[in-house]
Amino acid sequence: MALVVQKYGGSSVADADGVKRVAQRIVATKKAGNDVVVVVSAMGDTTDDLIDMAKQVSPLPPGRELDMLLTAGERISMALLAMAIANLGHEARSFTGSQAGVITDGSHGKAKIIDVTPGRIRTALDEGSICIVAGFQGVSQGTKDITTLGRGGSDTTAVALAAALDADVCEIYSDVDGVFTADPRIVPAARKIPKISYEEMLEMAASGAKILHLRCVEYARRYNIPIHVRSSFSQKVGTWVVDSSEIEGHDMEQAIISGVAHDRSEAKITVVGVPDKVGEAATIFTVLSDAEINIDMIVQNVSAASTGRTDISFTLPATDGQSALTALNKVKERIGFESLRYDDRIGKVSLIGAGMRSHPGVTATLFSAIAEAGVNIEMISTSEIRISVVVAQDDIDTAVAAAHRAFDLDAEQVEAVVYGGTGR
Amino acid sequence: MALVVQKYGGSSVADADGVKRVAQRIVATKKAGNDVVVVVSAMGDTTDDLIDMAKQVSPLPPGRELDMLLTAGERISMALLAMAIANLGHEARSFTGSQAGVITDGSHGKAKIIDVTPGRIRTALDEGSICIVAGFQGVSQGTKDITTLGRGGSDTTAVALAAALDADVCEIYSDVDGVFTADPRIVPAARKIPKISYEEMLEMAASGAKILHLRCVEYARRYNIPIHVRSSFSQKVGTWVVDSSEIEGHDMEQAIISGVAHDRSEAKITVVGVPDKVGEAATIFTVLSDAEINIDMIVQNVSAASTGRTDISFTLPATDGQSALTALNKVKERIGFESLRYDDRIGKVSLIGAGMRSHPGVTATLFSAIAEAGVNIEMISTSEIRISVVVAQDDIDTAVAAAHRAFDLDAEQVEAVVYGGTGR
Repeated sequence: MALVVQKYGGSSVADADGVKRVAQRIVATKKAGNDVVVVVSAMGDTTDDLIDMAKQVSPLPPGRELDMLLTAGERISMALLAMAIANLGHEARSFTGSQAGVITDGSHGKAKIIDVTPGRIRTALDEGSICIVAGFQGVSQGTKDITTLGRGGSDTTAVALAAALDADVCEIYSDVDGVFTADPRIVPAARKIPKISYEEMLEMAASGAKILHLRCVEYARRYNIPIHVRSSFSQKVGTWVVDSSEIEGHDMEQAIISGVAHDRSEAKITVVGVPDKVGEAATIFTVLSDAEINIDMIVQNVSAASTGRTDISFTLPATDGQSALTALNKVKERIGFESLRYDDRIGKVSLIGAGMRSHPGVTATLFSAIAEAGVNIEMISTSEIRISVVVAQDDIDTAVAAAHRAFDLDAEQVEAVVYGGTGR
Repeated sequence: MALVVQKYGGSSVADADGVKRVAQRIVATKKAGNDVVVVVSAMGDTTDDLIDMAKQVSPLPPGRELDMLLTAGERISMALLAMAIANLGHEARSFTGSQAGVITDGSHGKAKIIDVTPGRIRTALDEGSICIVAGFQGVSQGTKDITTLGRGGSDTTAVALAAALDADVCEIYSDVDGVFTADPRIVPAARKIPKISYEEMLEMAASGAKILHLRCVEYARRYNIPIHVRSSFSQKVGTWVVDSSEIEGHDMEQAIISGVAHDRSEAKITVVGVPDKVGEAATIFTVLSDAEINIDMIVQNVSAASTGRTDISFTLPATDGQSALTALNKVKERIGFESLRYDDRIGKVSLIGAGMRSHPGVTATLFSAIAEAGVNIEMISTSEIRISVVVAQDDIDTAVAAAHRAFDLDAEQVEAVVYGGTGR
């Protein structure tokens, strides 16, 4: 008998029919002889609706109270799901994050899981019950206040519970069939990938693929929990996210391109005319770090000998743009830079795959393909398994399609070798 | 410095504007130098909406899961209220029933409070915080499952917390100005009562006045918690529900009529042709008790000597009518009655006041007034402080108005002496 953890997103339980359809799938898994733990998100747009209500009473609601409010969303969906399962003749019990033993730190709105003590879940499973757990939420260690893990936290809840319960698999359900070699809306010839390693999935997530949350993949990798990404609207096999040792041909010394991801959510800031002295760059990024702003790519131009000044550009989430500009302007005098330039009409296109750094031809092929498509590359960043370029936002679709085609990811080719892809 | 417990019903926090208006009232109470604990119900129709959702996924949802679902309602309203208060510059913390220490038995949907251990509330008050507590909910003693106290349970939560915290007053806010001598929609000349005793308020609640829940008044009486019933839409003083010793003139030996209550929610069952033997009536009511049906009034006709049989009539909540008929039909053979008659087109009109039994004139005046209004009395029941009559449902308004007028409750008369009344 296997222990299966399933996670259903908000689109899978958007209404009563969705809840009933998911209930049938859960019961089928139980009837197949498995113990089943289900993690569920809030229904459809519930979380957004609750945030709207909060804004109506307070422009800046306290984090503790916002978490208390938002956790009502999963409370509703999990109770309805347990009812729908009971109506099919199987016992189901719902548990809040707190009841399920999801212990977090006290950072409201972006709490981190410290420990999972699923004693009540284990007992309920031993008594033959299906367990429904609220995703996205936990309880803080000292103060016992209700916390949320932030958007996408339900995936993390599922993997964390799977790890704590030593589950055989964590199934993540959404409304797409799995991980694709590129966004099918941009590249109609994109294909579903049967298997992808944790590392490449991490790069995918970090590069803008929205199908799995970065934290969830990190958690799964640390505890070696196999993730099966699939659709709750079909019975198709989806994409398995597993350890690289379990992927055939992965150890052979050849470049294997997984897919092309893209990200429209970043902005670029250029600090113009920074005095070319030791420590100036460090000061800039310390200031940004103190403001809790995550920086992605960084480029420092070669200093112009005539002026003794240089430009430093970096990308960051566009939502942090205003805070970053404010933080930097406060230290303008101290650092002595000339001005700031802000551009949120950019996008990032990333090629993900194994062994790319030792195959310089990969980089050359990517740059050529993008250039031939008439797209200008503004910034470049590379890692062992990823090459990212920043382009104008209007050029993203062209660049993604060009890269996908250049590496033979289109159509029916290289089916056995290619894995990787991008979210929607 | 006083400790004030305030309870706001769903109509007071029906939308963002309502939440903000209530927040201002709470802050005003705090600014006046009081410690404030607020018990809040779910917003407007939230509870009904959640029940509708439950019905869409399951015709008979398990009690545990229904309670989990419904408690999302107060979670939303209490978090929004805490945010609105914070926005006015005062610290507020919301607490679920469980966090507030409301310990109950395990009867889902109608749990009874076993204990209140408000340690976290006390600490938060000591730290200067306003405390917002979810009404209507608790946590079961052994299994630690979430429970609800049943409809109207928020009033009970407020009084129970007031008792546990040794509060100076429990203010119950709704959308009416207080307790009236009769329903103002039926008797436009009805007046607000400044003070009423627990005992008379209990009879009012039991007689159909909906302004306060019976359990809440019982709780307040046991712990001697003064209740102030008032409107959240005005600054008017409402009705104080207090110990009878605190009401002027209450100990004098004269009949003091408080008000006229009515109830449209009951039905009448007549068991026809019951053999006139010892113990038959006991069997009937044991059967009904086993089916957990609450009986209100009972009338047994004088046995007809010629047949050796009698009729037994009783009233009960109309919602329990079908269960009662089913339970009785199962023992028809054993008891040997002839048939059952069911009538849900009845209503109950009650006159409430002190010292009525020792003043036979009160009963005579009531019956004469109702008879002169052309209304037929079907059943009669009396207690020390109440006389109730069952009439046809269509005659209720006429009977209430006649009784109200007969005891000089109309208009500006007997203002100093009269207290008592009915809900809306």
